[in-house]
Amino acid sequence: MFLEDCWYVGAWSHEVKNEKIVGVKILNQPVALYRLADGTLRAIADRCPHRFAPLSMGCVEGQSIRCMYHGLKFDSQGNCQEIPGGGPLHAIKPARVYPVTEQDGWIWVWMGLPELADKALVPSAFGLDNPAFYMRSAQLDYAANYMLINDNLCDLSHVDFVHAKTLGWATGGGWSTTNPDISKIDRGIRIQRWFVSQPTSPTNPTPVDTWNAYDFLAPGVFVMESKSYKQGTAAACDFKEPTGEPQTYRVEQQAVTPISENETRYFYATGFDSRMPEKLLEGIFKIVMDAFAEDKTIIEAQQKIIESTPDDMDRSFIPHDRALTRFRRMMEHLKSKQQRYSSDDS
Amino acid sequence: MFLEDCWYVGAWSHEVKNEKIVGVKILNQPVALYRLADGTLRAIADRCPHRFAPLSMGCVEGQSIRCMYHGLKFDSQGNCQEIPGGGPLHAIKPARVYPVTEQDGWIWVWMGLPELADKALVPSAFGLDNPAFYMRSAQLDYAANYMLINDNLCDLSHVDFVHAKTLGWATGGGWSTTNPDISKIDRGIRIQRWFVSQPTSPTNPTPVDTWNAYDFLAPGVFVMESKSYKQGTAAACDFKEPTGEPQTYRVEQQAVTPISENETRYFYATGFDSRMPEKLLEGIFKIVMDAFAEDKTIIEAQQKIIESTPDDMDRSFIPHDRALTRFRRMMEHLKSKQQRYSSDDS
Amino acid sequence: MFLEDCWYVGAWSHEVKNEKIVGVKILNQPVALYRLADGTLRAIADRCPHRFAPLSMGCVEGQSIRCMYHGLKFDSQGNCQEIPGGGPLHAIKPARVYPVTEQDGWIWVWMGLPELADKALVPSAFGLDNPAFYMRSAQLDYAANYMLINDNLCDLSHVDFVHAKTLGWATGGGWSTTNPDISKIDRGIRIQRWFVSQPTSPTNPTPVDTWNAYDFLAPGVFVMESKSYKQGTAAACDFKEPTGEPQTYRVEQQAVTPISENETRYFYATGFDSRMPEKLLEGIFKIVMDAFAEDKTIIEAQQKIIESTPDDMDRSFIPHDRALTRFRRMMEHLKSKQQRYSSDDS
Repeated sequence: MFLEDCWYVGAWSHEVKNEKIVGVKILNQPVALYRLADGTLRAIADRCPHRFAPLSMGCVEGQSIRCMYHGLKFDSQGNCQEIPGGGPLHAIKPARVYPVTEQDGWIWVWMGLPELADKALVPSAFGLDNPAFYMRSAQLDYAANYMLINDNLCDLSHVDFVHAKTLGWATGGGWSTTNPDISKIDRGIRIQRWFVSQPTSPTNPTPVDTWNAYDFLAPGVFVMESKSYKQGTAAACDFKEPTGEPQTYRVEQQAVTPISENETRYFYATGFDSRMPEKLLEGIFKIVMDAFAEDKTIIEAQQKIIESTPDDMDRSFIPHDRALTRFRRMMEHLKSKQQRYSSDDS
Repeated sequence: MFLEDCWYVGAWSHEVKNEKIVGVKILNQPVALYRLADGTLRAIADRCPHRFAPLSMGCVEGQSIRCMYHGLKFDSQGNCQEIPGGGPLHAIKPARVYPVTEQDGWIWVWMGLPELADKALVPSAFGLDNPAFYMRSAQLDYAANYMLINDNLCDLSHVDFVHAKTLGWATGGGWSTTNPDISKIDRGIRIQRWFVSQPTSPTNPTPVDTWNAYDFLAPGVFVMESKSYKQGTAAACDFKEPTGEPQTYRVEQQAVTPISENETRYFYATGFDSRMPEKLLEGIFKIVMDAFAEDKTIIEAQQKIIESTPDDMDRSFIPHDRALTRFRRMMEHLKSKQQRYSSDDS
Repeated sequence: MFLEDCWYVGAWSHEVKNEKIVGVKILNQPVALYRLADGTLRAIADRCPHRFAPLSMGCVEGQSIRCMYHGLKFDSQGNCQEIPGGGPLHAIKPARVYPVTEQDGWIWVWMGLPELADKALVPSAFGLDNPAFYMRSAQLDYAANYMLINDNLCDLSHVDFVHAKTLGWATGGGWSTTNPDISKIDRGIRIQRWFVSQPTSPTNPTPVDTWNAYDFLAPGVFVMESKSYKQGTAAACDFKEPTGEPQTYRVEQQAVTPISENETRYFYATGFDSRMPEKLLEGIFKIVMDAFAEDKTIIEAQQKIIESTPDDMDRSFIPHDRALTRFRRMMEHLKSKQQRYSSDDS
């Protein structure tokens, strides 16, 4: 069972443009994303109520969307407006319409009861369209359950092992030997730590203190900042969150969207603000891409092992599992109290 | 559960020739099709009763077929005639033999009780081998349940949407805005209509009246004729079936054969008689091929959506569904009264 | 249910070398094979008890293996020795360690209770590393249940049909028309026969008598010798096993290892001793490879037919099935009396 009472990233804002209807699958539900001529976003079940052809193969007509199998036209409430060849419109079940919004470069779809959709619950990210940042983005699909990816993102101790030659090399490591502060926030967890007196970068040995903090929010949104300061700042702040201007300021924003039980779409963007020269973006993006390929390799291998040994799923716990254990509990709690749109047990 | 009491197209006549044994799957049953030296067709279960190797990997020997795994030989009743290394022949279960016949360029296999096989039930098509027609044929496999293809063929209103740029362009459209006459015939439905005062073709604006009529017969055989007449003929006939000689006479013959629950083989041939010049065949065939690729795209998408949302299969009905609803009911009726060869519930 | 009380070939000895950890799957269980610096072999469950990442993606450190997802290190008993970030070691379930040994060029893994692992039960093969023989080896994966391959190897009458143009051509055939002597041996069957007065080879018509004998041992190990003698030897031996020095001496060693219910790994080596010139090896290996491709084709076809007709699995028996019937019974007997490591029903 998925958490429905949630905004899920369905696509990048720039993917849905002009008259293109983008068909995606979220929580095993086919969803068609499109815009009206004025740019207004719409999300509708990507299955015509008539015979279940995908509306994403249809076309936008004014405020409406037309199925291009038999030509039925639906208004923005999902109600049938036109049946070629006639017949009573009320005989056609409405197509489900999903609340949809866009923020920070992403299109967010509410998968629960529409009346519960609250835009205040959209996690706040940095934004691809924030002019203060140089950002670059991509996405990839995992053949794995989304919670394995969430686990991965809740516990960055793996950087020292999975990413020893990529992110570990670039950041100087120490992710598994330092213990971040973990706290509960609304619909998520906050993870913060200082890396003290590490080289600025692989090519610059000048030591700096780096503040690394991220929120991980339901259903799987990762928003991280990484700020470097001159050596001694961590101690001067009593190892709390710094308030001064950093020397460099890097950001990551990522979102994990379940396609189905064992397929997941992973959206990510990386970048920094103008304290660093734009020309560094390509190199950093390359490292991040390589690192995500490493994650994909090990997580998909983990998924396959889980599938081949379903009878032995008692795992062991280590202290670094604290954050992911909390996040899993929080997800279970949110699921336990949700009112579901559908009444089936899946 | 499939309808077994029926002739299914297993292959084109020209596919099974000389000593080649063709292995196909019909209603999830492996069937081997082959000819004796004199051309006589045979259809036998494509699984040796010994250890289930495919007989289609064997060879024809006189009136018999030999399995090339361990060399058992079976006569034309499916009885074992020879066991290399000896042993009692009666210990070998007979291989199931299917009634088989050929007509109109197709090989037809009876999947029900052999004693019920009645050649009069073979649907009558136009025939690839009819010298009066220029015909061209092909086939394709769908990753979809056969009834989705039958639905598609029972309701040609989709031509205006799915095939707007191919068949719709070539025929002038109007498939969704005209209502054909639908009548019940033996083991099928008949669908007839006039297209009045439409251009002869995309390149010839001279208006003509066109009589379009097809039978759709169990299990999924589509036989259509399309005859053009000078303008005014439809009215002169009182919009009934015309009797005079047409200006042009086009035909389509198609057959839908379930391979398994979610795989279907689709055989088709298109053409016309000598009232049209042979050189037009290639262009028309190209349009038909493009159109069938369009059908395959939307029907396989429809199948995927159905598979991903199995709990919500209540569809809505429109007037153009009349023919397919009748056809589905007729198929259910035929199934309900059939005696099945096998007694399992699948 | 698989037979667990058995040594299975997991890999070739030469595959596991230096610091490379080889991940395989045996009886649906992921197993990591690796060597310590001194060459000692180890086999450990290829799933970290922490979060089920494959240890084969980890690295060997001294006597230990480290998971490269979160860095947990396990000693040679499978006990956790180190958790990056700390925490009690006893909270980590031990990884299952498998008894492992190597013999005759193969790495053997015991899949049952470790205390029952008896190296005397490792089937004796000829050995790739036996200096008296010129040998060449390869392997291939089948999309088929392992018992179909075992059946194939227990009954070589199929050589006359499946391999008529390869092995049958090379050996002169007669595999289906002669009846070998079949006897029970410990954990297997022994199959022996004389081929009398057959040409020495396709290019040498001089008749010889050839003694062909093989053991087929649980779980699926095939060890065959083929010795040629001057004409008359078979009769002189009273058709019993010969004791004199043969003119030529060929050997085959093969092993069948279930990966999962419907996937099987097949290891094989072929060769001869120095009575034949080494330069013949390539040609003979080519014939054997072609023959195994023929087996793979028909056995995978047989598997597909079995999968598509699961309700009709009553097979018929022929005299040549004697050996495989005995072998199947023996496997069932071994399974019935085994104590299983796992208690699930799979």
